[in-house]
Order: sequence, then structure tokens, then C-alpha cells
Amino acid sequence: MTATDKHILLMDGPDSKGLIYHVTGVLFRHNLNIIHNDEYVSPSGRFFMRTEFESTGGQDTFDSTALLHELASTIPGSETAENRGSIGQSNRTNTAYQSGITFRLNPRRKKNIVVMVTKEHHCLGELLIRYAFDELDADILAVVSNYNILQPLVSKFGIPFHYISHEGKTREEHEEAILRTLAIYEPEYLVLAKYMRVLTPGFVNHYPNRIINIHHSFLPAFIGANPYRQAYERGVKIIGATAHFVNNDLDEGPIIAQNVKEVDHRHTAADMATEGKDVEKIVLSQALKLVFNDRVFISGNRAIVL
Amino acid sequence: MTATDKHILLMDGPDSKGLIYHVTGVLFRHNLNIIHNDEYVSPSGRFFMRTEFESTGGQDTFDSTALLHELASTIPGSETAENRGSIGQSNRTNTAYQSGITFRLNPRRKKNIVVMVTKEHHCLGELLIRYAFDELDADILAVVSNYNILQPLVSKFGIPFHYISHEGKTREEHEEAILRTLAIYEPEYLVLAKYMRVLTPGFVNHYPNRIINIHHSFLPAFIGANPYRQAYERGVKIIGATAHFVNNDLDEGPIIAQNVKEVDHRHTAADMATEGKDVEKIVLSQALKLVFNDRVFISGNRAIVL
Amino acid sequence: MTATDKHILLMDGPDSKGLIYHVTGVLFRHNLNIIHNDEYVSPSGRFFMRTEFESTGGQDTFDSTALLHELASTIPGSETAENRGSIGQSNRTNTAYQSGITFRLNPRRKKNIVVMVTKEHHCLGELLIRYAFDELDADILAVVSNYNILQPLVSKFGIPFHYISHEGKTREEHEEAILRTLAIYEPEYLVLAKYMRVLTPGFVNHYPNRIINIHHSFLPAFIGANPYRQAYERGVKIIGATAHFVNNDLDEGPIIAQNVKEVDHRHTAADMATEGKDVEKIVLSQALKLVFNDRVFISGNRAIVL
Amino acid sequence: MTATDKHILLMDGPDSKGLIYHVTGVLFRHNLNIIHNDEYVSPSGRFFMRTEFESTGGQDTFDSTALLHELASTIPGSETAENRGSIGQSNRTNTAYQSGITFRLNPRRKKNIVVMVTKEHHCLGELLIRYAFDELDADILAVVSNYNILQPLVSKFGIPFHYISHEGKTREEHEEAILRTLAIYEPEYLVLAKYMRVLTPGFVNHYPNRIINIHHSFLPAFIGANPYRQAYERGVKIIGATAHFVNNDLDEGPIIAQNVKEVDHRHTAADMATEGKDVEKIVLSQALKLVFNDRVFISGNRAIVL
Repeated sequence: MTATDKHILLMDGPDSKGLIYHVTGVLFRHNLNIIHNDEYVSPSGRFFMRTEFESTGGQDTFDSTALLHELASTIPGSETAENRGSIGQSNRTNTAYQSGITFRLNPRRKKNIVVMVTKEHHCLGELLIRYAFDELDADILAVVSNYNILQPLVSKFGIPFHYISHEGKTREEHEEAILRTLAIYEPEYLVLAKYMRVLTPGFVNHYPNRIINIHHSFLPAFIGANPYRQAYERGVKIIGATAHFVNNDLDEGPIIAQNVKEVDHRHTAADMATEGKDVEKIVLSQALKLVFNDRVFISGNRAIVL
Repeated sequence: MTATDKHILLMDGPDSKGLIYHVTGVLFRHNLNIIHNDEYVSPSGRFFMRTEFESTGGQDTFDSTALLHELASTIPGSETAENRGSIGQSNRTNTAYQSGITFRLNPRRKKNIVVMVTKEHHCLGELLIRYAFDELDADILAVVSNYNILQPLVSKFGIPFHYISHEGKTREEHEEAILRTLAIYEPEYLVLAKYMRVLTPGFVNHYPNRIINIHHSFLPAFIGANPYRQAYERGVKIIGATAHFVNNDLDEGPIIAQNVKEVDHRHTAADMATEGKDVEKIVLSQALKLVFNDRVFISGNRAIVL
Repeated sequence: MTATDKHILLMDGPDSKGLIYHVTGVLFRHNLNIIHNDEYVSPSGRFFMRTEFESTGGQDTFDSTALLHELASTIPGSETAENRGSIGQSNRTNTAYQSGITFRLNPRRKKNIVVMVTKEHHCLGELLIRYAFDELDADILAVVSNYNILQPLVSKFGIPFHYISHEGKTREEHEEAILRTLAIYEPEYLVLAKYMRVLTPGFVNHYPNRIINIHHSFLPAFIGANPYRQAYERGVKIIGATAHFVNNDLDEGPIIAQNVKEVDHRHTAADMATEGKDVEKIVLSQALKLVFNDRVFISGNRAIVL
Repeated sequence: MTATDKHILLMDGPDSKGLIYHVTGVLFRHNLNIIHNDEYVSPSGRFFMRTEFESTGGQDTFDSTALLHELASTIPGSETAENRGSIGQSNRTNTAYQSGITFRLNPRRKKNIVVMVTKEHHCLGELLIRYAFDELDADILAVVSNYNILQPLVSKFGIPFHYISHEGKTREEHEEAILRTLAIYEPEYLVLAKYMRVLTPGFVNHYPNRIINIHHSFLPAFIGANPYRQAYERGVKIIGATAHFVNNDLDEGPIIAQNVKEVDHRHTAADMATEGKDVEKIVLSQALKLVFNDRVFISGNRAIVL
């Protein structure tokens, strides 16, 4: 068995009786072996399942389109996928929709991303080192920044760096310039690795649920600017960082990962910021690993991590 | 739907293709709805599954014996459960064995336990308060101690306290006396809530995988006596506690739960012991909650928590 | 040397050059040995010092009033303490004021407290067990509640329980009734161990910096009611608890201690509340230990823990 | 006041009455202002103090040699430093010895270090990024490795890389070759950033208390090789990492910093290793920050962090 014989199936839709049975039945009849299966039903009745399986018969015995057809048509009360659903292929992921359920088969492991930064290097440095040693589960296609401070770091790793200053531009003009650059790369995800400007809804709508931000506080505490200054003034004993999807409410998208660190009264706001950087970069990396391994579903304002 | 319509099925045996499919199929045909399903396949190929489901049709439509028969007979290549397996009932848990797989259906939620202590009150106090407010998922039938120090505390809660001194007795005589007392209560689990004497294999064999101990260190660091003294002398920066099943190797049974706490050079061994008590009692309580909710499988020297 | 030969000196005032030198000089000339000394100067220039020392010559050689006089008069530029400062004694603590500096010598170790609760038992149970085994550094004089639910628990420990219902009373009438009861006990501190009613400024002003509350969230996240419901809906990955002094802004007094616990999407708001209780009771106990051992200074809205 | 007006004084020696008084008195008479003072007396009676102070009068009014003379001569019962003690200067740190007490004044902030690695990049990458942005409090003079795998990474940062293979050499020959290379750089500290070979006592003795190692377990658990494999087989629920000074007992020098991370039964040994790397690199960085800021004293096998 080779590594290419491992597959991932993602399901997301309204819950109904027998879903696990029907899906695992299709896999069983195709002689596929489930390695790991994890599912979750939300209190509001939405069903999420992530199934890792392997085809022991070898690559040529596995027909992903046929499998997806059968999955889509096997859900009780459904018509054939050809009539009402759709089966397509994009980014090497086969997708089917049926009875409100989305099936995704073999989402590609390695994502294409663009990283956006401002002046701080700690998160970017973390991503670059991981990328250089193939630990990121993603290819960094380019780095975009509104300052040119981090260009020397990025150039060490042979990655295109686009310096797009916001000076002398309206917010819309600046975002337009960034979008034109992003269009070259067609990234699947944008990673805001301490990009310190608020994005407009117009921008965010280009990448729905595909922008990941690291916020330098334990959200929802200290939303907005200068969270470490706020934390110092409030005298907290623990600081944190939050990686989350970006939607159109500031610091309000689904939270993917959080972590914290103890501080005490001796920490100035600057000390907290220094300590916090270690938390930020690790939390961001952990969140990206979850997203890039197709383990994160979004359910309203909550992230389901399977 | 009432609370009595919720059921738990536990499976444990060698992995084979289609296990999830076959089991969920039986549940589907019985019109049962899976609320939560969690499974794990160990690297050595052992399959563990915990399934919570509900019978929406009402209590009278649910026949647990028939369900168990069908589960046992549905595993491919198996003979009928009557011939080779066994279906029994004990402690309100229905159990079937088939093809090396153990099925347990509806393990009772509330366990009967006896708590064993020596002189320290912190873990016992924690259990008593939880028990008094029905948060322990267990009934404390009695407390057994080799000292009478904690009798006043136990008597506040109206629980029998058995003072069985080890003085003037051989280890075997002492354990015999304890076993005679335990025989009165027939506990499903023994909880060693800071019982500070090593148990002999002869004693442990009376309660295989049914004795839970709290060890006052982050095992396997500081096995044996005076772990906080050892921790101080080693100058560690973190102390911990470990809840584990007791087998016949000192401090060596499967680990159920662990937690830690930061310390520094200013902590004396006594300070570490004081700080450690908070960790110990919470870790023990969390481990008991997992065990008493039938979420812990044992696989060799490892505990699988589903 | 006996235990009574240990002393604590607390200083709090504007920083100036030589403060440590002058104070340690007085102790040196009195033949007193510093065991531990900790100080902090805030960014705004306020000086805090906590000094533990011992008189090796025995109890009769130590004159605390003389020591305090000398401390007060030794600060450069000061007049004698008799003229401008004051040296008094209350609650077995000698206090002197000089040049804006407060000296407190030998604050008594064990505090007198009243605990206020509503319906939840976990924090109260924790305090009662600690008190029963003399681990609280305080005497619980009484428990006051607006419900009678916890009376049976309190009565196990032989402590007066005052059930003062808020029903049929205005907020002011209810607080008046509580204050009359508190007046009987003259507590040094009020501990709100899950007292679920907001106190008016009029009430709080009776106990300035002497009311300690446990809030069931990681403040300043989720201020106000139902923090676990808020946490669930926000989809946080970590929950926490905060022990703080109560001032007249809701959930806004100086933070003494905080701690956290990881959760995931499977935790309902109720699960988070259950998990959170373990954090709450330990954080409250740790905060009380700090306060009752005279290790907490208040500086604006921040708590300095030495 | 400029940044160069900040000074650090380190004291280490047998405790006696009045030490703080005498030292702060010298500083007071020199018109120096203590910003932060922290001291610790070990149970065995050893005194450690770290004092940060500033000379407000400007750089030219501060005579460090005179200050050190006065400090050394002011300890009661001491003779003049010239007769019995010694005052020297090395590495820009003034040092005096008196009555068994070591005084160190103005230890330089930035240390010269050499980093030793084998094949793993995560700790080295962390150090290089910090160094590139001047956050390491040290200059990396060179990287030495027994493999050439990490040369491309190091060369990105313009630092000499010395590939000294151990193949075909005895352990002593290999260490001799390394020592010859180190002699070129005269590093103050050697940082073993996942250097996977055991050093002989002969080697260690060249850098007493100046070699810092990161061990990939929560010491003293899992001493020696393959700690993550050991952790998996023991079924622990928490893994950790330990930064410590290297002495001549394997994995046994004074512990500087430790941290941990939760794992569960689903983590294979390889998963634990992957997760553990994030802990390792942060713990190593934090330990180095403490050491390079002269905050770590060694007391037997324990590290005192002030």
C-alpha cells in the first residue's frame, strides 16, 4: 500500500437517521477500510463527518467519481445525483451535493496560500521555517505586505514578496491593488500573519471562510487595537492569542484555536507583547495545520474541529 | 422522549473491515438514532467503539437482548452468539462476546464504589462534596482507612467508615481484613483517594482494572515515595498528578488523566505538596468521571478514552 | 525559635531613593533577620514591599511599636511619626503612616470572613473542607444566602447559616438585611462564593477592597450574566474563571487570580459550566490564600501579588 | 537618562544578617536608584540577589570599580578586597569575591554563543529567526553539526556552519575536533539545539555551567533515548520538554525551564514528537532568555531564576 491510497471524505449537512450506516456501507461495498472516523451532530441538528479510509486493493481499483455518485445516491429519499445534485471537481477535490449534504472526497493535502503581513516577523518567520522544511501542509505562493520591512526575511526563502503600501491610497484602492496581486496566485487561503489593517467586507467576500487571522488576545477579551495595553491596564493574570476565520465583524469570525500564558503584575504592556508573540505564532501554526488537513468545518460562528 | 431512552453501546475487539457499517446497520434497522459515535483503532489493530444512541419510538419498542443478539451475530464470519458467544446480564449491563469482540450494552451510569484513604483529606473531601450533590456518577458505599483520622469528615456525610488499622498485622492479614469488609459492599470500583500503602498482587487481583489510584506526581517521573521531595531536589519547574488504574507494578497501571502546575525554586517540598493537592483532587475527579461514564477502555498498559 | 517569632512587614507608598536601604537598616539594627523580601515599583512610581523576617533573640526582645516608630521616622525628610503620622493598632495589625507611606506590621494571619452564596455548592464546599482542616487561613464566621438550598451543607460543618431571601424586598431592603447580619460578625472580608446578585455601590462601600468575588469567565471576556452560554455561542476553545476584588463597576475590580481550561466544540454551554466549576473553586481558593496571607496590594484597578 | 545607565548587580554566597541592608546602602551612598531587586535564600542558607539599578547622574558619575570595591569591603567582618578578595574584569563583567560571596557587576547583556545541532531544524530555526531580528540577547558566532543537513538553513542567515562528522572518529577524536573549532570562537555559552550525541565529561568540563541543552521530555520522566516512544508506550496524557544545564550525568543538570502539552491515546509516538517540537523550541528560547539576561543562578542541581 502506498501513501496515495489514503483518502479523506468530508460530509456536512442536516442530520438524519442512518447517515453513518449508509456512508460506511458504501465504503464497505467498495472494499475500503476506515482508518479513522469522527463525526459531530450540532445541537441544531447539523451533521459533520470526517472519514479517513484506505483502498487496500491498490490505486487502480479505486474510482472516486463512482464512489461519490454512490454516496450521493445512497442517502435515503434522494434522487440521483445527476438530477438534483452535482458532482464536480476542483482543486483535485471531488465534490457532490445531495439532499442538502455536501460530500468532499480527497481534498488535496497541500494548500496554496498567500501570507499577508505588516511589520512583525514572528508569525511569518514561523511559517517560513515550517515551509522550508515541508511541515506547513501548504505552499506559500507569495507574501504581501503594506511595509517592506520583512522583505529581507522573505527573500532568504526564495518567495515572492509584494510590497503594496497603503500610503496615498484610499482603503478601497489599497485593497484593489492587493486583490490584483492575489489574482495572480489564486490562493486557496489567505493567512493574516499579523496583518494590522482591518479588511473591508468587499475584500473579505472574495475569500469567504478562506482568510485566517491571528489575533493577539484571548478573544473575545480585548477586541480591537492594542490588546496588550488593554490587558496590562485591566491587570489580567493570563494573556492569550486566538486564530480565527475572518468574517465581516471585526475579530468575530469562527475561532479555530486559542492558547494562553500566565503573566503577573511585573509584566508591562511591552513585556506582555513579547511573551504573547510565542503564543501567537504557535497558535497560528496549529490552526493552519488543522485547516490545511481538512479538519475544520464551519457552523455559523463556530468552528468544528474533527 | 425521556432520559431512559438513551443507551450506550461499547465494543472492544480485533479490527476488521466493515465493523462500523455492520454495527450502525443493526442500530438503523432497529430504528435507533446515533447521537454520538467515537471509535479508535490502535496501531496493533484493536478496535474500540463507544456509541450513544436513542430510541425515539419509546421504551417499549427497545429490546436490548434482541439487539445484542443481532449485534453479535452480524459480525461477518461469526456463528450465532448462542453457540460460540455468550449473552449475559450483570449489574444491569448486557454483555455479548463474538469473534473475540466484547459488546456491552447499557452499562449502568451510576457505579457502586468504596473509597480507601489514609490520612489526607483533600481527595476524599472532594469526592464527598460531589457525592452529596449527586455529581459523582457513583454511590460511595463506604470509606475504608488504615487510620481513623478522617472518620469525623466521613460521618458528616452519613457514609459508613471502616477503620482497619494495619498495626500488629502482616500485610496479608491487613489486606484480608479489608477484603472481608469490601465483600459486604461488592463495589464495582475501589478508589484509592490517597491510600498510602502498596497493595499486594493478591489484593489487586480481586479487582482487575477496577482499582483507581491518584499518584502525587506526573508519572513516570518520581515513582514511589515522597515524590514532592524528589521533585524539589531535582529542581523541576512543573509538578503534576496522575490518576491511573492499579495493576501489579507499582505506579505502573494505565494512565487515565494527568494534570500539572507550574512551580519555581521558591517552592519547598512542602509547598509543592500543598500546591499539588489541588491538582491531585481535580485529576482524580476527572478520571473517575471518565471511568464512571464508561468512556475508558484498557489496551495493554494504555487507557483509551472515548 | 518558635513560630511566633516570624513577622511580616508591608509597605505601600510613593517610591524614593533608598527605601529598601532605610527599611532593611532598621531591621538590621533591631537584630532581625530577613527571610524573604519582595518589592515592586509600578510604572507610575508607587513602591510596594513585603518583608518576612524573624527575631532570633526570642519574643521578648521584639518591640513592634518601637520598630514601627523607627520605620516611620527613618524615611528621609519625614518628621516624627507622632507629629504627622499615626501609629495605631487594629485587628492585631500595627499600622503607621509616614510621608504617604503606609507601614503594616504583623498583619494577623487568620482572617475573619463571611461567605455569601446563592444556590451553587462547589465553591462553598471547597471553602468548608479547607476550613474544616484549617487550610483556609481564615475563620468562616457565617454563611449568608438568598436561598436556603445550601443550609444542609453548611450545617454539617457547624457554621451559622443566614437565609435572607430577596423575595418581596427591594434591592436596598435586601442589602440592608444582609448588612445587619454582617454587623453581628464584623468580618474583615466578604467572600462571594457564587453569590449571583449584583451588589449596589452603597453595599460595596461598606467593605472597600474587602469583597472578593469569583466570576465564572476569563475576564474581561463575557462580563455579566450567562458567561458559559456566551462562551458556547462564541465558540471559544478555552474557558476560565477570575477571582477579583469587587468595586462599583460590574465585574471590574482588581484581578487577583485567573485560570483556564481547554474545551472544544463538543462542549455544550452546560458542559462548559460543569467543567468551569473545577476552575472556579480552585481559582477562588488560590486568590483567598494570597489575600489572607497579606500578599496582595491594590494599585488602582490592578492587584500586585508579592 | 540613557539606556547605558542601567546596571545589574549579581550576588551569590552564604547568607548572613544585613546583606540586603549593606548592599543597598552602598548603592544609596553612590546615589544609585534600585529599579528592581530580587533575592532568594535557599533552605541550606545560600543567598542570591539580583539588583537592577540606574545612575541618574549620568554615565560619568558612575565608577563601577569603586562600587565593587566598596561592596566587597562593606560585608561585615571582611577585610579589604585587595587583600583577600579579588576584583577583576572579564567579558565586560566586573567581578569581586569577598567572604565567600561573589559579586558580578554589569554582566554584559549580549552573550557570544555557538549552537550545536544534529539533524532537526525546529530549535535552530527558532534561534536563527530571533537572532536575525535581534531578539536573542546573544550573537550566534557559529553553528556546529555532526551532519551537514542544516547547512542550507544556516547559510540563509550568514552564519558560519561547521560540519564535523563523527564518522570514522572515536568519540574523543570527534570532540577534540569540535573543541578546536570552538576555540576559534571562544563562546560564553554552548547551546545544544537538538544535538543528539552524549558529551563526555572531558568535553563538558571545558564549559562548566555554560552548556544548555533542550531535552525532549518532561524530565526526569523518560531520560535517555526516544522519549516520545517511551511516552507513547507509557500512555501519558501530557508530554513536555526541559531546558537544562549540562553536567556530567546524562539529562541531569539544573533545570532552567519546562513546559508541557496535552496529548491523548490517538497520538502515535511520531505525533507526539511533532507536537513536542513546538514545546521544545519555545522552552529552549525561554531558558536562553533567562540565562542571557543573567537571571539564572546555579545552586547544586537546582537553578534559581530571579
